[in-house]
Amino acid sequence: MGERAERRRRLQSKMKETGIDAFLITQNVDLYYFVGSVQTGYLVVPSAGEATYFVRRSVVRAKEEADVAVEELSSMRGFGTRLAQSYPELFGKPEGEKTIVAAEYDVLPVQQFQRLEGALPGARWVDGSMLIRELRMIKSAGEIEAIRQSARVIDIAYETAFAAIKPGLSEVELMAVVESVIRHNGHMGLMRVRGYNQEIITGMIGAGAAAAMPTYFDGPAGGQGLGAASPQSSGRRPIGADEPILIDIGCCIDGYVIDQTRTAVIGELAEDLALAYEVSETILRETEARLKPGTVCEELYEAALEHARAAGLGDHFMGFGADQVKFLGHGIGLEIDELPVLAKGFRYGLQPGMVIAIEPKFTFPGRGVVGIENTYAITETGFEKLTLSREGIATVSRQM
Amino acid sequence: MGERAERRRRLQSKMKETGIDAFLITQNVDLYYFVGSVQTGYLVVPSAGEATYFVRRSVVRAKEEADVAVEELSSMRGFGTRLAQSYPELFGKPEGEKTIVAAEYDVLPVQQFQRLEGALPGARWVDGSMLIRELRMIKSAGEIEAIRQSARVIDIAYETAFAAIKPGLSEVELMAVVESVIRHNGHMGLMRVRGYNQEIITGMIGAGAAAAMPTYFDGPAGGQGLGAASPQSSGRRPIGADEPILIDIGCCIDGYVIDQTRTAVIGELAEDLALAYEVSETILRETEARLKPGTVCEELYEAALEHARAAGLGDHFMGFGADQVKFLGHGIGLEIDELPVLAKGFRYGLQPGMVIAIEPKFTFPGRGVVGIENTYAITETGFEKLTLSREGIATVSRQM
Repeated sequence: MGERAERRRRLQSKMKETGIDAFLITQNVDLYYFVGSVQTGYLVVPSAGEATYFVRRSVVRAKEEADVAVEELSSMRGFGTRLAQSYPELFGKPEGEKTIVAAEYDVLPVQQFQRLEGALPGARWVDGSMLIRELRMIKSAGEIEAIRQSARVIDIAYETAFAAIKPGLSEVELMAVVESVIRHNGHMGLMRVRGYNQEIITGMIGAGAAAAMPTYFDGPAGGQGLGAASPQSSGRRPIGADEPILIDIGCCIDGYVIDQTRTAVIGELAEDLALAYEVSETILRETEARLKPGTVCEELYEAALEHARAAGLGDHFMGFGADQVKFLGHGIGLEIDELPVLAKGFRYGLQPGMVIAIEPKFTFPGRGVVGIENTYAITETGFEKLTLSREGIATVSRQM
Repeated sequence: MGERAERRRRLQSKMKETGIDAFLITQNVDLYYFVGSVQTGYLVVPSAGEATYFVRRSVVRAKEEADVAVEELSSMRGFGTRLAQSYPELFGKPEGEKTIVAAEYDVLPVQQFQRLEGALPGARWVDGSMLIRELRMIKSAGEIEAIRQSARVIDIAYETAFAAIKPGLSEVELMAVVESVIRHNGHMGLMRVRGYNQEIITGMIGAGAAAAMPTYFDGPAGGQGLGAASPQSSGRRPIGADEPILIDIGCCIDGYVIDQTRTAVIGELAEDLALAYEVSETILRETEARLKPGTVCEELYEAALEHARAAGLGDHFMGFGADQVKFLGHGIGLEIDELPVLAKGFRYGLQPGMVIAIEPKFTFPGRGVVGIENTYAITETGFEKLTLSREGIATVSRQM
């Protein structure tokens, strides 16, 4: 059985467990995961039997890409009748009998959902998004290899950016160096994020006070950005000497993202910032020591927070004050914000195949952000570090 | 009154006309339009009186950016009570009396909507997305100036890309040239699109057969892309001689996008393709002749389609066969897919302040796409062409 057929089979097994008769999948990334295509349409997965991909556009392309039957869906009118023809047992029930149909409530817009409700009056709708997110949490060997490839490219980009650092260069000019390298090495030109209203701009290269500015982005370091229309990530501020330069970057190759952070400086960091950086590495090492099947996600966050507090850095951990975020790491794969999250309330035990970006960072308002971020795959016996870039504070001479 | 206060006043006026008591706005771009900030939260606009921006993150940043009162919203629990305190006449009604509350159904995910329903049991919800999209359809002088700035940058990028064209260079390498130029000139690093599952990758540079490949992207030219995970825009195929190179690019500066297309060739185009290009320019000229207040949007599409058919190019107009798109142009501003659309069913009369990208193109499967796209602002007496780049087929010598 192909990898994607196996994924659909696992989804069906979950659907049976939870009493779902059919799943209508329509988000790009979920479509790619289950059939290998992002063409616009609905993938209908019945609780048993074969799935069908009803495609609006492009049908031609979907037929080339997808590993299931593709049918043209010219309009929503008649979609109910089409489903009843394809799946009479599920969608051809007598009036009054309901079919339990799941959709991706976490991403599906209300307007589109209401059109589905109109098209399928016999459906009782349920939120199936956690089912999909939990399946996607465990990566196959092929997915992990795709992330390794992104890790190799981001390492090249990091070394190129590091070599380009000089006083007076702006954050966004340094980011342009990264973007050029990753684009020439297969980066798709965007990184996907699931959270509503969240946006990723290749990550964030931020120096000094600018890096420490909080933003709407759900991460420990925000960045000044290029104005109120884009108030995150890199800005026009020139990089100065003796301030931390946070190089938090990613790329997306063949759909799979990597996320890594390194801290650099022109000259040297103040002692307390250098110490905070050391604490971030120590937390990462302590986290690594527990990265193996069975460890509970929230415990990794709690241990890291405890360590930060014991080091007198509790207020600076993962952001500052009211803008602190309450996690240590996050799953990555086709999207940057996958499960599991290393945060309170996430009781998942680690499992082989999880891929997690772990990013202990410390924010000092007015001064900058220091920290490190590696991406790891959980293995049968522990972990594989997918991130390749050298660690430690990367220092550029003040005399250039 | 400031520009954004005026926008809120116009929204309130529309709300009164349509019987809406309050509008809860939460999408990034709409927030930016109405208060000048994209921080995560809900902007509550009552049908009369002052709006309040309830912000989850970052409150600090929202207070700096927004021109309305900002209140912290730590969780959805108690949001209803907070609203009843702030707006007792609207949200403090006796049990059984409903408040009509609008939300952006076209973008708001079902899960988040259901949380809102839970938080405000006294609300009767309605879709307000068209109200906002129609307000945003008419740009202010400041917005048009922002788009002019993006037009200036994309002209520089186009000239730089054109100078870089040589046989054997891949589409994506040429796109990387564009991306580097726009990034160094203020491009935010992404272009926003409203449509669910739609993605923009700086536009599309596509040559020959690759450009003519259809995609999920709702435009006349798709592109091969970088694999099934990103099956649109530029790909790795080397650009060859005597094939059309479609350079459809945009950028986003201070939140505002531009969209323009030019056709280039190394050597020369086959006669029929060159002729089709000429038809696209003629259609553009004929459209321009009618670009003034009062002209009905759909009539511009119909006239263009009619012209294409009369030229024997009906099957190639705006895509080929089943993958044709049924429009001639689209509004642009903060997003690439704004109102009005020049398409059947869009009965809007043109009005001063509308900004529209008009893109007559012809697709030849296996051979390529030719065409042109300019962005225009509608004025009191006609139009201003915002696009600056020279027109005509841009020719590169085969002997380089």
